[in-house]
Parts: sequence; C-alpha cells; structure tokens
Amino acid sequence: MNQWKEYQQQNKERFLNELIDLLRIPSVSARSEHKDDMLACAEAMKQKLIDAGADKAEVYKTAGHPIVYGEKIIDASKPAVLVYGHYDVQPPDPLELWHSGPFEPVVKDGKLYARGSADDKGQVYMHVKAFETMTATNSLSTNIKFIIEGEEEVGSPNLATFVKEHKDLLKADVILISDTSMLSLDTPSMDVGVRGLSYIEVEITGPDRDLHSGVYGGAVANPITILAQMIASLHDKNNHITIPGFYDDVVESSAEERKLMAEAPFDAEAYKKDLGINELWGEKGYTTNERTGIRPTLELNGIWGGYTGEGSKTVLPSKAHAKISCRLVPNQKSEAITELLINHLKKITPPYVDIKIMVHHGGEPYMTPIESKGYKAAAKAIETTFGKAPIPVRGGGSIPICSLFEQELGIKIIFMGFGLDSDNLHSPNEKFDLANYYKGIETIPYFHKYFAEE
Amino acid sequence: MNQWKEYQQQNKERFLNELIDLLRIPSVSARSEHKDDMLACAEAMKQKLIDAGADKAEVYKTAGHPIVYGEKIIDASKPAVLVYGHYDVQPPDPLELWHSGPFEPVVKDGKLYARGSADDKGQVYMHVKAFETMTATNSLSTNIKFIIEGEEEVGSPNLATFVKEHKDLLKADVILISDTSMLSLDTPSMDVGVRGLSYIEVEITGPDRDLHSGVYGGAVANPITILAQMIASLHDKNNHITIPGFYDDVVESSAEERKLMAEAPFDAEAYKKDLGINELWGEKGYTTNERTGIRPTLELNGIWGGYTGEGSKTVLPSKAHAKISCRLVPNQKSEAITELLINHLKKITPPYVDIKIMVHHGGEPYMTPIESKGYKAAAKAIETTFGKAPIPVRGGGSIPICSLFEQELGIKIIFMGFGLDSDNLHSPNEKFDLANYYKGIETIPYFHKYFAEE
Repeated sequence: MNQWKEYQQQNKERFLNELIDLLRIPSVSARSEHKDDMLACAEAMKQKLIDAGADKAEVYKTAGHPIVYGEKIIDASKPAVLVYGHYDVQPPDPLELWHSGPFEPVVKDGKLYARGSADDKGQVYMHVKAFETMTATNSLSTNIKFIIEGEEEVGSPNLATFVKEHKDLLKADVILISDTSMLSLDTPSMDVGVRGLSYIEVEITGPDRDLHSGVYGGAVANPITILAQMIASLHDKNNHITIPGFYDDVVESSAEERKLMAEAPFDAEAYKKDLGINELWGEKGYTTNERTGIRPTLELNGIWGGYTGEGSKTVLPSKAHAKISCRLVPNQKSEAITELLINHLKKITPPYVDIKIMVHHGGEPYMTPIESKGYKAAAKAIETTFGKAPIPVRGGGSIPICSLFEQELGIKIIFMGFGLDSDNLHSPNEKFDLANYYKGIETIPYFHKYFAEE
Repeated sequence: MNQWKEYQQQNKERFLNELIDLLRIPSVSARSEHKDDMLACAEAMKQKLIDAGADKAEVYKTAGHPIVYGEKIIDASKPAVLVYGHYDVQPPDPLELWHSGPFEPVVKDGKLYARGSADDKGQVYMHVKAFETMTATNSLSTNIKFIIEGEEEVGSPNLATFVKEHKDLLKADVILISDTSMLSLDTPSMDVGVRGLSYIEVEITGPDRDLHSGVYGGAVANPITILAQMIASLHDKNNHITIPGFYDDVVESSAEERKLMAEAPFDAEAYKKDLGINELWGEKGYTTNERTGIRPTLELNGIWGGYTGEGSKTVLPSKAHAKISCRLVPNQKSEAITELLINHLKKITPPYVDIKIMVHHGGEPYMTPIESKGYKAAAKAIETTFGKAPIPVRGGGSIPICSLFEQELGIKIIFMGFGLDSDNLHSPNEKFDLANYYKGIETIPYFHKYFAEE
C-alpha cells in the first residue's frame, strides 16, 4: 500500500521525535520515587493515542501505576485487535556504564539510545504510529484496542484485577504484542513462546551485628561464605539445576522441534565476540538456542553483603543477600517452582545462620500456536515487508501476562517483536535501531489488513 | 601510689571529655574525603601530648596520613618506653545500624559509644592520661615516647619508611601497645600473640555488559554464580581451608599450650547469646579460642554484584566482586599467603570468566615472650590494680606493624589491652566501657614504675 509508505516517509522525523519525548520520562516502575513520572508517562501515552486517531483513550487508576487504554471501533462486525504493551521501564543502574543519560535519548549510527527505547516504549509506539498511518489514510481494516500498562517490569501486580473488571472493554479476536526481538532484519523471526519467571530475594543472617573478622573470624559462620556455598550447590557440574523436582513438569521438546531450532542461524564466534566472553556456558547436552529457549534456568540477579566500599575493612558481616530468579518453560508453574526454590533453600540453610526469603513477581510460560489465524497474518505481514517469512523461535524472556490474557479473555497472543537481542534490554546503553523502528511501523498495518481479510 | 589515684579522681571528668573531643573527629583513613579530618586529628593528638607534659611533640608528614610523635626524656640513663597507637578509625558503615552517630560520642550505661572509642583512640588516650598523671605528680620513672599513626586501619603503608628514617628518635627498651582486648575486668588477660593478615579484592567479569537474564540466562556464565562457586570451594566440609600449601608453615601449638588455652574461661552459651547465633562454626578439631587464636582463617569481608536495589531486576550482571582476607598465625608469611591465594583463585577461575585481583594491605603474625622484662612489668601492673595476674591469650586480630618494629628497632612489644571483645570493633555501635578506660589509666603508670625498677 503505497499511501502507507508515502505517509510514513513524510512523517518519519516526527515519528522519531515523538518517541524521544516519551523516552525522556523516567518511568521506572520499580522505584517509588518515580510515581509522578509514571503518571506523567501514562497521560502522555493517552494523548498520543488520541492524536493518532483513537475515538477514546483513558488513564485508569490501579492500586499501583495506572493503565492506559485507547480504542477505535470502526465496525462491530470487523475483527478486533488488542495491542498490549508497557510504558514502564527497568531501573537504569548501573548508571556509570551509560555513555549518555538513560533518559536523555541520543541517536548515534542509526541507533536510538535510551532506557525503554526497545523495551518497550519504542515497540509500543510502532503500533501507535502504524495506527496513525491507517487512520490518516482511511485504511484501518480492523477494530483496534490498546492496553498499555505501567507495571510490566515489576510483574503486573494489578493487571489481573483490571482485566477481570474490564472483560468487555478488552474483548478482541487476537492480542498483538511487540515486546520481543527478532534474529535480524535479514533473518526475520517471531517468538512462538516465552519463558515463565520465579523471582525471590534471600537474606542470610549470621551474628546479629557486623563483627571484627580478626576477633571472631574462624569461630563464627560468615553469612557471605554460607550464601556462596548455598548458591554454588544450586547447579551441578553439568550446570543442571539441583533442586529436587525442578525439572519434573518440563515438557521436553521433540527431536523435530529441536531440529527446526537448530536451523535458526547461530554464529557462536559472533555471539561470543558481541558479549566479550571467552567461552559459552550452560546446561550440558543443549545448544545455546535451546538453553535460552526450551530449558529452564536459575540465575543470580544480584548479591551483596559486608563491606563494599573503597579500600579494605576487616569485617565479618551480619548479613548477606541475593536476588535469584528462574526462567520457566511450558508446563512449569511459577508458584510451584517458587515454592520448590524456597523450600529447597530453607532445607540447605545450615544451622549457623538464619534465612529470610522474599518473593518478587513471577509469571507463567506461554506458547503461541503457529497454525493460528493471528500467527499466519503476522508471518504474512513480515514476509510482505521483509521479503521472507519469519523463522519461529522460542524467546528466552518472560511476558507474565500472557497466560492471564488467555485465561480471562480466551484469546491467543501473537508476538511480533522488532527489536534485536543486542538492544541491551535491562542493561546500560539500551538502544533500538531506527531501521527496526521504521520497519515495525511499516509492517504492522499489513498485519491488520491480512487479519481482517482472513 | 595514692597521689596517682587522687589526681585521676580529681580529673576523671576532664579525662572523659578530652577523649570525646578526639572521637568527634571522623578520622577514617580508608576514605580519601577524610584527608583533612586526619590532619585535624593528628594536630589534636599532638596538642594533647604537649598538654600532658611532653617536652616536644610533632606531626610528621608522610606519603599518606601524618604520624604524631611526642616524648619526654627525664634521664638518658633510665629505660625508655615507646607507646604505639593509632588515631585513625575504620569506616563507620553500615551507618543505619548505629544507634547514635559514629562521630557523636554518647555515654550510656557507663559505656562510651563512638567509632574509635576502643579502637584505638580510647586506648591511646589512656596512655596520654597516664602520662599526664605521672608528670603532674612528678613521678614519671621512665623516658617515654609516643608514636601515634594514622594508617593502621589501612595497613600502615608509610610507617616502615618513617621508622627506618627515625631509628634514633624511636630508640627504646620496650614498645607498649594498647590495641587489643582482655577477657573481662574480673578476668584480666594479656595478648601474647596477634595474627597476621592477607587481604585481597577479586573482580570476576563475564559478559562485557549487564545482560537480560531472560535473553541470555542459561547460555552465558553468570559472574555471581561463578564467584559463589569459587568461594564455596575455599573451605571443605570440615571448614578446613582448601588452598594447597595454606597450612604448610603453620606452627602447630603444643599440647601444653592448648591445655593452657583451654583453661581460659569460655562460656559457649553466653558467647552465642551475645552474638545472636544458633551454633558455633569453625575448623573441625579446634575449640573456639583456638579457632580465633592459633589457627589461620579465610573470611569474606564483602561481596557485591548485579542489581542490589529495591524490587527486582532481571539482569545477568557483567561483574561480581568480593573482598577476601586471611588471618595468619606464627611462621606464616603474609606475602607468601597472598601469593598462594592469588595463584589458587586464578587457577580455579573457569574459562567462562576473567578474574582481576587487587592486593590490599597485609601484615605478619607476632608473638611476644612471656619471660620478657616488659611482659613481667605489665603482668605485675595488672596484678596490682586488678588484684589478679593476667591470663596470657592469643589475640585473633592483627597488628601488622609489630614485626616491622622488631625488625627495625630490635625491641619487643607488649600488648596491654583494656578493651573487651564485645566492644564492636569495626562494627556499628563501637563502644569502650568507662570502667576499662579508667582502669587502664590507673594501671599504666605501674607498668612504667615496675619496668624502671626491674
């Protein structure tokens, strides 16, 4: 549709500047001090939806950060597409590793650097601008609804309530999400599954105060040493997770699926070079793509205890802490794994110390059927603008709300991600390639077209 | 000597207030931002020495923090006592655990709370006030010299140069140090040995940036997990240190000495209760007193990596760090153990990550002979004011400069400590019991008296 291309060409610059405005708002959902920024970002999103052609758009209060909803209903008899995304972002630290301010967007070598540029403001905004493209050219062929939440990065604690209370509002035929990545612009791909998540925080307490490591060292258990011993015991020599029952519910992928996955291009040397690592690591018997796709994992997200400042302090600390999360694959249940993890850690805690465990957000794994109408429309859209059909891959990340939507709304989710694994999601210098941004805006209208035609 | 007691009674309050003035100065040697405080504290110390009756006192510049020297020479034919101490203190963190400001001294239940109250300003100041007691009552029977440095807590990097360049100035017959503790006022004791120290900092680097734990988790080695595995491997099931050669130079204590040590009163229940721990910990086959006295140790003083803030962040971090120190016993050499430690850690670093090791200060273990004139004078002084002879014990801490003094000045060191193990040295709420402070001031003059008489 040349009118789309034309319109997008004419408004290219504005499409970028509007996104930059959104990225300037530090909408960090995990940090209470950003409460006002969250509200400001929600209001901005709402306005963008109206500007793009929504009949109505609203900011809904929740017990936490607000949810933005907007819609344009052209004809009740047409299929409805519900676009889900989130306007909240991960905390930007460690700040010292950013080359430019996380909330001062910079374009360099065709890449837009800012926290949220890819995850997920940039990808949400592709849909807003694709929507505008269709309304401005009177070529919207579906009813379209947007739900853009502000708590995805903290586990969407209040989304379930909202969805349950607004089932009619959210009624649709398919859910479209761009919060994942593709292999590359040359090798387009679509996630057909995302992993679930269990996330806990552990506090080990030895003595009731920090002690002099000379006076007490050797005679009082050191919480850091004990925590390290506990962590070390969670993987065996084959990097297999040792928690009894951890793999019980894992659905082993068929030889057929593993064969298909093996066909996805993977350059180990380029992968290592990109990350600056000497060697690949992971569960014995699986490829890198399998390790991040079809296998569950246990990762240490943070650890701290004792003296971490400049110089040396001869202290035997009272406490040591760790943040631990597991990625889950189909048929594993977040709550069940969290409980397994908690019980196991308590079981292996030696009598010298006490353990306290806090549960952070979790989420269920999700698989999307490639035979579905939605997947076919998305694949066809990508083939139209990329010139080749997307490779179906398993994503390593988690989008905990998937199972919620399926359960409450009874509709399938399509993952149409335009980011790249190298976008530094959750890391310093997060970026979104402008080529991907514009390609997304170019491709999305075709999804609506083909979905309406099916 | 009643005149001493009388003078001390009359000046009791001033003796306390002067110490409080010194404790208000945040002389944290490890933190560069306290450079000026260090100088201010040195100048204050110098003034206190002059006020107490020193013929001369000076602040000597060094490459680091200054050294305070003061003396009163009454008669070249009399024996000279060199008093060593330090005016620098440990960093006060974690600040949130202090009940009152670390540099806002508070007296509660007869205890003086402040960083440095016991380690070591309070114990140094006992000597200054004992000195004043003798000069004010014209009863000083020895030549007396003070060397009070400002870098003890960071390993005295510049003391050796100073001592080498001022051998004549520091010439003495004995060195007296109050930087250790005694069992209790009811059970006086004297340290006959202190442990040495090796202290390093480790940095483990995996990927060259923080990664999304979903996208890369399971396929890239997590530096925290690897560091934990390395730390866990440093002790075996018996809490014996696994570094090859670590114990090679350790002089095993004789059954006789272990029998003597066993006679020192030790109440395991009271010890556990005081520290709030459920169980004792340590190297199999040794008692608590042996574990902190005659055995070397390896302790984690700090660990950090990844996300340590509020809430959850699904990151696979680029780096993980740890501060590790070993306490050494007679015949172990600090440099040799540091090298063993470094080589071992490098050897067990898996190929997935890189390791960088920084060496912090170390120090040699030291033993003082209980047959020496100095020890006898100190023991007699304690017997005079406490009514019972001190029990000789092995201290767990380290005073790295001991071997330096012995080597350069060829004189023995006597540890006459008046603190308690419960003084929270290096911990929040460090305190010094006023009863111990005054008992020290009362006892020290007798040391000079008896040492002169021998």
